[in-house]
Amino acid sequence: MQSALNYAQEKAQPFLDQLMHFLRIPSISSQKDNAADVRRAAEWLLAELQSLGFTAELITAHRHPILYAEWLGAGPNAPTVLIYGHYDVQPAAKEEGWDNAPFDPTIHDGKLYARGATDDKGQLYAHVKAVEAILKTSGALPVNVKFLIEGEEEIGSAGVCAYVAQHPDRLSADVCLISDSSMGDIEQPVIVSGLRGIITMDVVVTGPGGDLHSGMYGGSVHNPAQALAEILAQLHDADGRVTVPGFYDDVQPLTPTEREEMARSPLAEVDWRRETGAPAPYGEPDYTLRERIGARPTLEINGIAGGYFGDGFKTVIPQKAWAKISCRLVPDQDPQRVYEQVAAHLAQITPPTVTLQCTLREQGRKAAVVDTSNPMMQAAVRAYHKGWGGQPPIFVREGGSIPIVSDFQEVLKAPVILMGFGLNTDNLHAPNEHFSVEMFYRGIRTSIHFLYELAQA
Amino acid sequence: MQSALNYAQEKAQPFLDQLMHFLRIPSISSQKDNAADVRRAAEWLLAELQSLGFTAELITAHRHPILYAEWLGAGPNAPTVLIYGHYDVQPAAKEEGWDNAPFDPTIHDGKLYARGATDDKGQLYAHVKAVEAILKTSGALPVNVKFLIEGEEEIGSAGVCAYVAQHPDRLSADVCLISDSSMGDIEQPVIVSGLRGIITMDVVVTGPGGDLHSGMYGGSVHNPAQALAEILAQLHDADGRVTVPGFYDDVQPLTPTEREEMARSPLAEVDWRRETGAPAPYGEPDYTLRERIGARPTLEINGIAGGYFGDGFKTVIPQKAWAKISCRLVPDQDPQRVYEQVAAHLAQITPPTVTLQCTLREQGRKAAVVDTSNPMMQAAVRAYHKGWGGQPPIFVREGGSIPIVSDFQEVLKAPVILMGFGLNTDNLHAPNEHFSVEMFYRGIRTSIHFLYELAQA
Repeated sequence: MQSALNYAQEKAQPFLDQLMHFLRIPSISSQKDNAADVRRAAEWLLAELQSLGFTAELITAHRHPILYAEWLGAGPNAPTVLIYGHYDVQPAAKEEGWDNAPFDPTIHDGKLYARGATDDKGQLYAHVKAVEAILKTSGALPVNVKFLIEGEEEIGSAGVCAYVAQHPDRLSADVCLISDSSMGDIEQPVIVSGLRGIITMDVVVTGPGGDLHSGMYGGSVHNPAQALAEILAQLHDADGRVTVPGFYDDVQPLTPTEREEMARSPLAEVDWRRETGAPAPYGEPDYTLRERIGARPTLEINGIAGGYFGDGFKTVIPQKAWAKISCRLVPDQDPQRVYEQVAAHLAQITPPTVTLQCTLREQGRKAAVVDTSNPMMQAAVRAYHKGWGGQPPIFVREGGSIPIVSDFQEVLKAPVILMGFGLNTDNLHAPNEHFSVEMFYRGIRTSIHFLYELAQA
Repeated sequence: MQSALNYAQEKAQPFLDQLMHFLRIPSISSQKDNAADVRRAAEWLLAELQSLGFTAELITAHRHPILYAEWLGAGPNAPTVLIYGHYDVQPAAKEEGWDNAPFDPTIHDGKLYARGATDDKGQLYAHVKAVEAILKTSGALPVNVKFLIEGEEEIGSAGVCAYVAQHPDRLSADVCLISDSSMGDIEQPVIVSGLRGIITMDVVVTGPGGDLHSGMYGGSVHNPAQALAEILAQLHDADGRVTVPGFYDDVQPLTPTEREEMARSPLAEVDWRRETGAPAPYGEPDYTLRERIGARPTLEINGIAGGYFGDGFKTVIPQKAWAKISCRLVPDQDPQRVYEQVAAHLAQITPPTVTLQCTLREQGRKAAVVDTSNPMMQAAVRAYHKGWGGQPPIFVREGGSIPIVSDFQEVLKAPVILMGFGLNTDNLHAPNEHFSVEMFYRGIRTSIHFLYELAQA
């Protein structure tokens, strides 16, 4: 093991160069024009895992291939770990506010700036480099390792979830490992113990048969941009509580124990202000900031558009106005039911002066809570402890969603460990996404330790 | 006069070809990239008026040149008419829903489709062809004619209004003629007797310091798209009345006479439905549709945007959300005062969880009401009567705004005649803008009649 750690240290620069190569491929899964790039990212990673001795293939999924690779040389009596990650990334364009082109990785102040740097190429690649370090120095891994790396995480993971459901034997594992999460402080590692679910939908409000001149008809036509604003404004009360009837029906009250556990990783208002840059906290006053994010469902407007938005001004009454809406869900909320509640409420509050159409985008995903007491998890705790030079991790319930988690739990019946290497300030899904170079190296070390700890778990 | 009418008839096809040439120049005044095209449109028209014997020049205005041309050969004892128009157009792009490229004029079913066809190139060009017809057949016009044709009407007319204020002697006229309005029925000509004023503004709501991941922070941050919707939703009550304090303070109640006059050109709900294609009328229930459009002020959202709006979905809490807002104003409302009322109200209803910035775009314009009893107006009534084969025009108060009208009234002290040749269904400011070819020819005939009627007024 020490030789693997030494190897990783010696190869620090080439490992970083290879990650930068990976980041140069604009594997944006949601944009049709990038389909070939997405495939290129999968092929590049496939070749690398094959060169390390993995049996690997690309599997046709919904829109982009799944990369499956396995090294089973530890034998049937050794534990098997399934490492999941995704090589696809969110859309990004320089003019959205990036300092560098999003697919021209740039290192500045110890941070590697590029779309996908932290979400999820950098985090996933740490595991690839960990197995390389062990294989190149010992010739064999201490456990069996399967990689399941998809290209549709940013568009809902429909393909990989179907694949998991159909191939439980091939993917069977004693533990699933996912590195696609983050921590608030680089010196305090975090294992995520809960994730919110998600549904996403499109809403279109239509008024007149075409754009109208606001002088010729203004005052007699319900402007769809105004009507959309009026509809959206009715979805939260003054306390930030979602007003959709039934929305909280299946939300279990937090137990005192859960609240205590969450209070162990508080999100202080001063830190929240630093991380978000927003003027003042928002949301349900009966819950702490950590609870609002980790344990409460939300309804969020991720995009809104209507009318003229070019240079200058156009005095138009737009024909249509659009919104993209998502809900983050907590345990026991059923995605389909929540969608139906939102859609029914939207229909109910739409005035007769406009029409509204609501469409569910992807199959929704349930929330997930992971068990923190099993031996695999304890191996992860020890690995972090060692990888971080003596600092044990804490457990935190996060607000994000990783669609595959509940599938791994339900289909593979294996414990899921969310071993993140990101920082909350990495700007994932935003301009200037970055990944701490130090985190990349700590991730590699922690992954090496984990594979050895697992062999003894 | 008859020979001029005959000439116009013979030249019907070349006149149309020339108009199509004019329409091919994408003179979009609001878009910086089109500045050279805007100038090209001015130069093309300048050359044409010079070739007809006008003394003409381009005058530097705010962003695009004013074309001024005069033919004063009728002598100091003859009346002088100042014909105003604009050669700039609204933005347009095929992908907004045009059937043909907006700057590739296409004739279909007797309609000429192109951006600017009705607003205002086609209407203004009818007067150019009328003077050509008279000059080519009689060698002289029956009255003195001045053309004042600007390139900034779609961006607020700041330059031409300043020029009018500075050159009342050069522009002095007995009557001002503007053809930049429309009628509901091609067989019922309309002289516009009132126009609303306008102010336009930009609103930006800012929340966090950058885009945030909605999973990581959703529930603790006031989403700016949601906050903007909540703010905009407070600007109208359930009856469509603007809720900005003081907004109606200077709005004079309609007199029974005014209501009677407006009732003479009713806008039936069935016609409103046909023209707008909207599901149901909207607005102040105490006013007829014609009154809501012609005699009541409005607050309109002309554009709204925030968050992600590309292909796919991005679970982002946007940093900012924007709205473009305009108010149509009625007589006695002061544009600056209304802007200040709206801005103050927006500031007042902005919650502490976001910040809001409101900016006035252009100097606002007052509403205008024109006198319908003067001899010049009566000449226009007779001209329409003749140009339309025996159908006298009616007077209608319109909802649109023509910034220059109040300046002509105040500075030149001349009656303004709004002699429109458009149809309400011409889709101005919208995709598939068009101009009836028949209207172009009726416009030329009516303009010829008007110049002769004026000589006898």
